[in-house]
Amino acid sequence: MTGTLWGIGVGPGDPDLLTVKAVKVLAGVAALAYPLNADGGSQARTIAAPHLPAGLPETGLPFSFTPDADSAPAYRAAAARLTEALADGDVAVLCEGDPLLYGTFGNLLPYLDATVPVRVVPGIAAATAAAATVARPLASGDGALAVLPATLGGAALAARLAHGDAAVILKPGRHTPAARRALAHAGRLADALAVARATRAGEWWAPLTDLPEDATLPYFSLILVPEAAP
Amino acid sequence: MTGTLWGIGVGPGDPDLLTVKAVKVLAGVAALAYPLNADGGSQARTIAAPHLPAGLPETGLPFSFTPDADSAPAYRAAAARLTEALADGDVAVLCEGDPLLYGTFGNLLPYLDATVPVRVVPGIAAATAAAATVARPLASGDGALAVLPATLGGAALAARLAHGDAAVILKPGRHTPAARRALAHAGRLADALAVARATRAGEWWAPLTDLPEDATLPYFSLILVPEAAP
Repeated sequence: MTGTLWGIGVGPGDPDLLTVKAVKVLAGVAALAYPLNADGGSQARTIAAPHLPAGLPETGLPFSFTPDADSAPAYRAAAARLTEALADGDVAVLCEGDPLLYGTFGNLLPYLDATVPVRVVPGIAAATAAAATVARPLASGDGALAVLPATLGGAALAARLAHGDAAVILKPGRHTPAARRALAHAGRLADALAVARATRAGEWWAPLTDLPEDATLPYFSLILVPEAAP
Repeated sequence: MTGTLWGIGVGPGDPDLLTVKAVKVLAGVAALAYPLNADGGSQARTIAAPHLPAGLPETGLPFSFTPDADSAPAYRAAAARLTEALADGDVAVLCEGDPLLYGTFGNLLPYLDATVPVRVVPGIAAATAAAATVARPLASGDGALAVLPATLGGAALAARLAHGDAAVILKPGRHTPAARRALAHAGRLADALAVARATRAGEWWAPLTDLPEDATLPYFSLILVPEAAP
């Protein structure tokens, strides 16, 4: 084994939001890997495409994005394949957003042998990209920020929103109505902004209350709850 | 007025952690601005230095980093100077980390006239850079993440840590012992990692419990509390 396994954050969607470091590392690796969607595509590869050297061997990894007992064999197999590929040099695993912030690379780490050299290039997170789209502070000064997957469930969301801090609700999708109820319960619905496809084609945003009560948000979207005005 | 006011995230310290977009925007602006430290230097300018075109007019802004009533005149004056500079073209305001995540650019926004065209290039946040340094997931799956300035104070920190979520405690500095007591109170001290100067010269990290109880952490540091093992 000679290579390093790199987790490379490719950011939220705009290929120009890769870092200079990510582009440099990609120019020197011997192979690429990336998680595959259910439909066999890879968002991370699409985002990084303009920066990928031609002719590298590529491996699509059939990951489940939410790790559970059922997904362990897929992660174990991926860890074995990636470790094997390191015999030929460095391998880059492309990750949407940041590799360690709700990223599949973070899920993969426990399945790697401790002797595998791992390095991570951080990426632009969806939450900061969404704040840039609306040009509103995500958090400032002494204020806390709660980052909340919508899949936490209504009661757990409401408990965390009750502090009155700034918040980001990730992956609302079909959980949007439940997130909306949790926001109303915490008295924060009027502040909430729906931001869809930040930095991608078809980007839009709107106050959540401008959408129908039963609206669900598309895949690349999140809900920003800027800090309450002082 | 003809130019756009750009908030440019320059990331946590490594100049290669600017995005490709930040480098492209910097190549086209007519002037630069950046907040000044108390000692008259600018971390953001130092980080961006390798990517700055030569010969641009530069303005150091004497910002207070924690906005309060006393800092309003400085922000108001900065907003006026920046708006005036837009007559000559685009102006880039360099910001450590991300401009809207505890950034001075976020504090400046309310002082700008609504007619000023503002755009933001998101940057790599210190928290994801620190996670990359320790190669540990910051958050994953359905788990929440609490981003907590140490200046919140012990009781407010403990209340948010009580949920048992992953957490990042920002700017611990002289508040490190209080943060440590809040972590102990929430039963999370054993999980806490001190990470200093991530991606900068002199980077180091250690379990917080390996440091003396009264230790304070240096300026560019934070405390990571990875999610509790399932």
